[in-house]
Amino acid sequence: MVRGKLYVLSGPSGVGKSTAVHEVMRRHPTLRFSVSVTTREMRPGEVEGESYYFISRQRFQELLDNDALLEHAEYVGNCYGTPEEPIDRMLEQGIDVLLDIEPCGALQVQKRRPDATLIFMAAPSFSEIERRLRGRGDTPPDKIEARLERARWEYQQAEKYDYIVVNDDVDHAAAEIEAIMLAEKCRACLRLHYLKEAK
Amino acid sequence: MVRGKLYVLSGPSGVGKSTAVHEVMRRHPTLRFSVSVTTREMRPGEVEGESYYFISRQRFQELLDNDALLEHAEYVGNCYGTPEEPIDRMLEQGIDVLLDIEPCGALQVQKRRPDATLIFMAAPSFSEIERRLRGRGDTPPDKIEARLERARWEYQQAEKYDYIVVNDDVDHAAAEIEAIMLAEKCRACLRLHYLKEAK
Repeated sequence: MVRGKLYVLSGPSGVGKSTAVHEVMRRHPTLRFSVSVTTREMRPGEVEGESYYFISRQRFQELLDNDALLEHAEYVGNCYGTPEEPIDRMLEQGIDVLLDIEPCGALQVQKRRPDATLIFMAAPSFSEIERRLRGRGDTPPDKIEARLERARWEYQQAEKYDYIVVNDDVDHAAAEIEAIMLAEKCRACLRLHYLKEAK
Repeated sequence: MVRGKLYVLSGPSGVGKSTAVHEVMRRHPTLRFSVSVTTREMRPGEVEGESYYFISRQRFQELLDNDALLEHAEYVGNCYGTPEEPIDRMLEQGIDVLLDIEPCGALQVQKRRPDATLIFMAAPSFSEIERRLRGRGDTPPDKIEARLERARWEYQQAEKYDYIVVNDDVDHAAAEIEAIMLAEKCRACLRLHYLKEAK
């Protein structure tokens, strides 16, 4: 059984990660998406175990105390995290797992799991991020500047990633993510078993 | 102008490299294939500048003396080599270049050009190589064992490559080569220019 691969897709808010993830998952039904835990309240339309696992602060603290989170962050007063154990279980079963998390979390995963492949999603141009943030209409104007400042910091971290995918078009971005996932499966170090017979 | 990428496909004789290369080139007309030089005589059906550039021993020695070959080898009394200058010219023009060379040459390229991506083509099983060598009918039975011994040595080098592609089916192998080529273009170190605007 070849172990599954862990892929982390990250990038600034507004760059179009979730649309691309949706397209990649559509093309690869065997790929599994990791569901995060959060302490924030469920919003209308959200589904327990699909959008998030909604847990108490106390439970979150227990997960932290047990070192059970692959990455975690606090955002506007709420905690978010990725439980490690379900991911390990899937990888051991040969299932590939995709995480869609914030850049801060992505770098935590990189430190903890050097076998993970990190993909940064960039906009075709930085001004496009501003345009999308304003166009989405869910961010108050006074928060836009803070979001952009954060996006700038996130861009500065991108050189620590393995790959950069440019989201000029969702099909194109999904094709690049697919290619990266397939190429990573072809890494020589993961396929040495094909050579054994010749020894 | 983003510089082109140099890909090296290698693997034992009889593994099906040229069929896969043909398929990859068909799908990617902008990819260029590097033509080697050789001192052996032209065979019926071969075309100067397509199969090889046919040159004299003296000219070959001049190329060696001028350090103008990316890799070279002698095989049953004839010399073969890959001129470096035409490849550099294409890469500078942003053109990707694919080399289909013997494993000995591939490792020479790796030492000389750490920016090259090395892909080893393996058969689905080693016994398949023997079957193909015998089935092709162009190798005398007494040479088969020597070829297999060589293939065994070549397999032992495969862990030095970046990727291993398994040629169980030409479409599948070509798809893996394509994915590797696209993923390598997405390497963060080659796309840092997308981040500049945010600084």
